[in-house]
Amino acid sequence: MLPTKTVKELADYLGGVVQGDETLAVNGLAPLENAAPDKITFLANPKYAAKVAETGAGAVLMAPGGERYGRTAIEVANPYLGFAKLLTLFYTQPHPPLGVLPGANLAASARLGEDITIYPGACIGNNVSVGNRTVIHSGAVIYEGAVIGDDCVIHANAVIRERCRIGKRCIIQPGAVIGSDGFGYAPDGASYYRIPQIGIVVLEDDVEIGANCCIDRAALEVTLIRRGTKLDNLVQIAHNCQIGEDCMIVSQVGISGSSKIGNHVTLAGQVGVAGHLSIGDNVMVGAQSGVPGSLAANAGYSGTPAMPHKEWLRAMAVVPRLPELKKTVNALEKRIAELESRLK
Amino acid sequence: MLPTKTVKELADYLGGVVQGDETLAVNGLAPLENAAPDKITFLANPKYAAKVAETGAGAVLMAPGGERYGRTAIEVANPYLGFAKLLTLFYTQPHPPLGVLPGANLAASARLGEDITIYPGACIGNNVSVGNRTVIHSGAVIYEGAVIGDDCVIHANAVIRERCRIGKRCIIQPGAVIGSDGFGYAPDGASYYRIPQIGIVVLEDDVEIGANCCIDRAALEVTLIRRGTKLDNLVQIAHNCQIGEDCMIVSQVGISGSSKIGNHVTLAGQVGVAGHLSIGDNVMVGAQSGVPGSLAANAGYSGTPAMPHKEWLRAMAVVPRLPELKKTVNALEKRIAELESRLK
Amino acid sequence: MLPTKTVKELADYLGGVVQGDETLAVNGLAPLENAAPDKITFLANPKYAAKVAETGAGAVLMAPGGERYGRTAIEVANPYLGFAKLLTLFYTQPHPPLGVLPGANLAASARLGEDITIYPGACIGNNVSVGNRTVIHSGAVIYEGAVIGDDCVIHANAVIRERCRIGKRCIIQPGAVIGSDGFGYAPDGASYYRIPQIGIVVLEDDVEIGANCCIDRAALEVTLIRRGTKLDNLVQIAHNCQIGEDCMIVSQVGISGSSKIGNHVTLAGQVGVAGHLSIGDNVMVGAQSGVPGSLAANAGYSGTPAMPHKEWLRAMAVVPRLPELKKTVNALEKRIAELESRLK
Repeated sequence: MLPTKTVKELADYLGGVVQGDETLAVNGLAPLENAAPDKITFLANPKYAAKVAETGAGAVLMAPGGERYGRTAIEVANPYLGFAKLLTLFYTQPHPPLGVLPGANLAASARLGEDITIYPGACIGNNVSVGNRTVIHSGAVIYEGAVIGDDCVIHANAVIRERCRIGKRCIIQPGAVIGSDGFGYAPDGASYYRIPQIGIVVLEDDVEIGANCCIDRAALEVTLIRRGTKLDNLVQIAHNCQIGEDCMIVSQVGISGSSKIGNHVTLAGQVGVAGHLSIGDNVMVGAQSGVPGSLAANAGYSGTPAMPHKEWLRAMAVVPRLPELKKTVNALEKRIAELESRLK
Repeated sequence: MLPTKTVKELADYLGGVVQGDETLAVNGLAPLENAAPDKITFLANPKYAAKVAETGAGAVLMAPGGERYGRTAIEVANPYLGFAKLLTLFYTQPHPPLGVLPGANLAASARLGEDITIYPGACIGNNVSVGNRTVIHSGAVIYEGAVIGDDCVIHANAVIRERCRIGKRCIIQPGAVIGSDGFGYAPDGASYYRIPQIGIVVLEDDVEIGANCCIDRAALEVTLIRRGTKLDNLVQIAHNCQIGEDCMIVSQVGISGSSKIGNHVTLAGQVGVAGHLSIGDNVMVGAQSGVPGSLAANAGYSGTPAMPHKEWLRAMAVVPRLPELKKTVNALEKRIAELESRLK
Repeated sequence: MLPTKTVKELADYLGGVVQGDETLAVNGLAPLENAAPDKITFLANPKYAAKVAETGAGAVLMAPGGERYGRTAIEVANPYLGFAKLLTLFYTQPHPPLGVLPGANLAASARLGEDITIYPGACIGNNVSVGNRTVIHSGAVIYEGAVIGDDCVIHANAVIRERCRIGKRCIIQPGAVIGSDGFGYAPDGASYYRIPQIGIVVLEDDVEIGANCCIDRAALEVTLIRRGTKLDNLVQIAHNCQIGEDCMIVSQVGISGSSKIGNHVTLAGQVGVAGHLSIGDNVMVGAQSGVPGSLAANAGYSGTPAMPHKEWLRAMAVVPRLPELKKTVNALEKRIAELESRLK
């Protein structure tokens, strides 16, 4: 059963303003095209504004001042954010604390917070610390001495290696590996000598790590991911990297060792970043780009090697016409030779 | 011990025609160059037709009408398919049903079909349904309410999240994650607000998922992979995608959110596909290509950004000669200036 | 507590020569800038040679003949290698043998060497063989008949499939999959018929496999990774590949089926290699390159499609100037037409 809420209650929850009947009650969200009268819908993209006239929904979440075609509306500055918050309100609920379930493997020296849940098959090593209300799913393995903050969710078969530290409200999707050994070897002439990777990984608060991501522990100190940064699936972060706050690292990105990424940086899917470089704040890098050197802040880049995004767009427009361009140049060469011979 | 079969029996199994001694018995397959008389070999690539004369094999699987150099042959329209079927016949056998083995973690409310096997360390959550003859290997984790069809194999440490649905005869390789949360956040000005991902993943029948793949659950509805589609290892499918029937998605491909892929599409290794686009039926996309927009059906594409494959081949042929082309243009410019000055 | 060693003892351990006070005792390593007198530091990069004058360290590890500013020094031919060896000496210790810990799932027919450790939640199948001093972490799954050599570390949630063979001193990072089914299907006109993958994977001695890597088993015979080769995280090795000795395969590389890689090959991050080709010894391939055909030994390559590295650098320098080049050509064309009209 979904909870039922009045439009007034929802507006209060969102910090919005009601236009119309604030006593109207709804019990869920639905898209504009496909909504019943007991649902609230939302207009996030102005392109669809005309659909407000025809929606079957009881109420509409929208930006202030929009045409509401006589509908009851909740006006909020950011309707997309409001939609996300109502999704949370209607469709999610906190995980009930179940304690340590039978079949979990728990070291005697592990320290558990209050209201935790540890599912069957999870393995918690010596001296691990687990924060309050944190949920650890089946098959997750927490090595000795790792520290996990309050209100985290560690999904199935994720691995957190020894001594790594996870902040509050972090979510680790299934199969992600935090603290694998960095890829460091010293050539000894013939072969490779393994450099011990004695550092750790630190995830600050509100960091989320996608499924099957790999975050390598530092060689000596800390691989750091700062507050609020989100990683999509299958991302690789090499040893000693520092990733800033509120970054979006999209699926299959790889960042080589010791690179520093600023705050609010977006790396689109499959981007590769070389090692020992810096990317400034608010940079956006387009999908599949390869970044061989540092990038200045507050700009967009694309391509391999990466260049300013607009420059890349213009260059790529020429690529399919290269054969034609080459042909033109060859023809011009002949015409010039002809002119030259006539002027001899 | 491999089973022994007569050429007649094999021909009947494959729907082929015997040329030569149909009573001849063989007990396995071997390559043309390295086969004993108790083995059958196969000629799939006409390039190697002459090797039939010299093979030590007792019999040869080949296309109708080929020169068989006096050998006993089974003629089938598709010898490579016949080879695959004989491999199955000689070298594989159904998994014997072992039941729920000690050390498996099974919720009391799980519903198990007949003749299943659940290995030690597998974790089956509340209200999970497992079909007949399905095998779930050690460390696989099936979250609450997931449904797995008949004759599936879920390999070790694979994860199937809550409420996802797996069809019949699906194979999930080790470490694959089905139903991780989609990568969806609403910017709130300063930071990112997590959009609950309340949808699911549906795999239809005969879908195979490679090792350590990630298939994100939909934000609201269904991430769908249709009948017969095969994913290689380390593939990323983002939330809300729909992948058609009988597609081949090669290793390390990434498909962004809400994109629709047609039937019989091949995406070669490391291809990246942007979000909210469509790829038509029977499209082939070359390795490492980046697909920024929709692609029309029945064609091949390559490059980043993707263009028709032949166009890309021609353009790439010019790329290594760009420095030379530039030099030529510079020289032409001088020659023209010279001509112009002479005509002043 | 870190061990305390005299400079003499360290020099003997490294095969180096003491300059200065060989009785001086240190108890760890520290960087040049930030070292106390009870630490030894190291100078690996000549760029920082002047820092030796100011370091607070008690002793310095450096190349023979360098200016030691009156410091006690240990001279070794390869200071970076020496640093790695001292890291090992001071900061690592052999895993103490803990035996089979409660909560491990061990088949009765498994054969275990001496001084092994098998953590809770690890699953060891029938007829598995585990070498002496090998450590198998929680959640690792070893299928029936696999063989693991002496002194290996199999990290949490790694999977080794049936009959695969792992040499001595191999390290498998968390979540890696060894022996998943190769991606092989025979088209039957309408759909795809699965080709049984009945081969195995063999890792020779001193091979290291990164987190969440996937190494597919061969269709018929062996996918082989030779002695000393190291794989970074999220690497894909398809069925039937042969990788030579002492290769460095960086994160997110994908190698397609049946390709052969020589010895001492480096493939940088996100490189893609097509199937059925050869790469010669000592080849280096730059990040994100796509290798469509065989590459001759002892050279560097970059780009998609890959070309000699220097050629690629020169070509890439032109790419951002393509729009300008095209404009120039258009202008030249007009100027030539003008000249031609004047000479008519």
